[in-house]
Amino acid sequence: MSNEVLYLSRSDIDSLAIPMHAVIEMTESALREKSRGKAIMPAKHWISPAGERFFSAMSGALLESGAVTCKWQSGSPENAKLGLPYITGLLLLNDLATGRARAVMDSTWITAQRTAAATAVAAKYLACSTPRTLAIIGCGVQGRTNLQALRIIHSSLCELRAFDIDPDRAKAYVAEAASTHGIAACSFPSVREAVADADIVVTCGPIVSNGDRIIQGRWLKPGALLVTLDYDCYLDPLAINQFDAVFTDDVEQVEHLKEYGFFAALPESLMELGTVFQAPGHARKGEADRILSVNLGLAIEDTAVADLIDQDARAKGVGTILQL
Amino acid sequence: MSNEVLYLSRSDIDSLAIPMHAVIEMTESALREKSRGKAIMPAKHWISPAGERFFSAMSGALLESGAVTCKWQSGSPENAKLGLPYITGLLLLNDLATGRARAVMDSTWITAQRTAAATAVAAKYLACSTPRTLAIIGCGVQGRTNLQALRIIHSSLCELRAFDIDPDRAKAYVAEAASTHGIAACSFPSVREAVADADIVVTCGPIVSNGDRIIQGRWLKPGALLVTLDYDCYLDPLAINQFDAVFTDDVEQVEHLKEYGFFAALPESLMELGTVFQAPGHARKGEADRILSVNLGLAIEDTAVADLIDQDARAKGVGTILQL
Repeated sequence: MSNEVLYLSRSDIDSLAIPMHAVIEMTESALREKSRGKAIMPAKHWISPAGERFFSAMSGALLESGAVTCKWQSGSPENAKLGLPYITGLLLLNDLATGRARAVMDSTWITAQRTAAATAVAAKYLACSTPRTLAIIGCGVQGRTNLQALRIIHSSLCELRAFDIDPDRAKAYVAEAASTHGIAACSFPSVREAVADADIVVTCGPIVSNGDRIIQGRWLKPGALLVTLDYDCYLDPLAINQFDAVFTDDVEQVEHLKEYGFFAALPESLMELGTVFQAPGHARKGEADRILSVNLGLAIEDTAVADLIDQDARAKGVGTILQL
Repeated sequence: MSNEVLYLSRSDIDSLAIPMHAVIEMTESALREKSRGKAIMPAKHWISPAGERFFSAMSGALLESGAVTCKWQSGSPENAKLGLPYITGLLLLNDLATGRARAVMDSTWITAQRTAAATAVAAKYLACSTPRTLAIIGCGVQGRTNLQALRIIHSSLCELRAFDIDPDRAKAYVAEAASTHGIAACSFPSVREAVADADIVVTCGPIVSNGDRIIQGRWLKPGALLVTLDYDCYLDPLAINQFDAVFTDDVEQVEHLKEYGFFAALPESLMELGTVFQAPGHARKGEADRILSVNLGLAIEDTAVADLIDQDARAKGVGTILQL
């Protein structure tokens, strides 16, 4: 049995240039495996030592794929001052049958990509039929990867509206997006203006205990899909009941987050995203429905993408082989 | 800010030759930090994909030491057939203030050493005044490290009694122990015979759902200390109320284990091991008391020892520097 483990740095993973459409396929595959009852995923656990810094461990197993991972990350709004991205971390990938470590890798690429890929999967099944306008609230890493992933699933998207608490950040973001994607892009001074007229809205600010929680259901146009990547940090506590349907990638984990002060209210009809794979009738019902998808980000999405990265890196001879 | 992380393999860590007494000191230091309310330690989480294999993630933070770790391991009785130790795994050590990864290291050395060190801390405060006889139930890695650690704390230990479900394993173990430690050592065909007359008993078999659960309180002599490292796998369900005092390293985690089918009954007077640091009166009360210490093994013990290893390895230039 091999006594070796593969180490992949962020630049190793970048060098693989795995395309977003492959990440979207793997993420949908993981969500489908989960919907067949072939995933194991304990609740994330958190350590909050001081201020807004958190550490979190997320583990997940895909029983059909035979892979299991643990991702250990830390995030803080303070990271920017340290010259670091909002989240840093590493991921451990193991073989499910033998328990042995297969790879240790940077987790930031996976987190950025699979979270956007999961937004794309939600939008594939839950957005209106020809979405044209996307609003991004929070113009960081996720703002960039979500735009990229959504344009792959919905090539009809041709207008970008953006908001950030730092207006200069929003301006730089829309300039970059217009240049990269060749779409009309504009930043707005308020969240309410940014989300107006958008067919798809993605909130991707930091996850903090004192979020603004301002977005009302009626701010969104009929037919809009709102995907929150930052729990309910941008969502008015009453708004959750102003949608025609509310989905989440994992019902159990949303309920678990109540213990940490998020999601004071949840609708009784909360549906799991995986149900959309079971029958077409489980996805969007009417073109004018306002739909909310609370995408927490799942450990098994990490597992599926890490498995893909490990296989690709080994095929290409990328990374550092270490003795266990 | 450094963009590097230190990798330490098992053989890197072995080469440091960190003495057991240093591990015992760090383990006691972590338990003391916890007893002052300066530790954060979410419940372990488990993935049990099939058979007796488990994966577990354990994270912990020491607020005064400024270190935080996540240990990701897999164990199975099947590992022996694969030529692997019962538990394999890796540990991630991060800086508490910035969240950055400091080190990725083999976890098996730490697990073997800190578990034995915690037994020694329990025995330092809870064993009778001059223990002479030690019984080891389960003659694997922990059987070896526990003997070593206990002999450091109680140099009066001069007789070893051992049992293993594989009698040949027990025989090899006692031969090795007699030769290494120069003590009288004998293996026995039953648990009951092995534990009779022992001042300190350590059970360190595999953690399995179908444990024998046979040890009765009255099998132990007056004044004995029983330390279980394998939850209640060797403990009769009624035995837990046959002790004069029952301690555990973490009350919350013992209670959490009920969800996984362990510890059907727990005494009302369950005390946390850390209370022994607060006042002498919290430790052993009478020489004839039979005392049970359920040592689950804590994430913060890993944290303290990993911190020591990282500092020692950097001072000695051991390990592989990797880019994040």
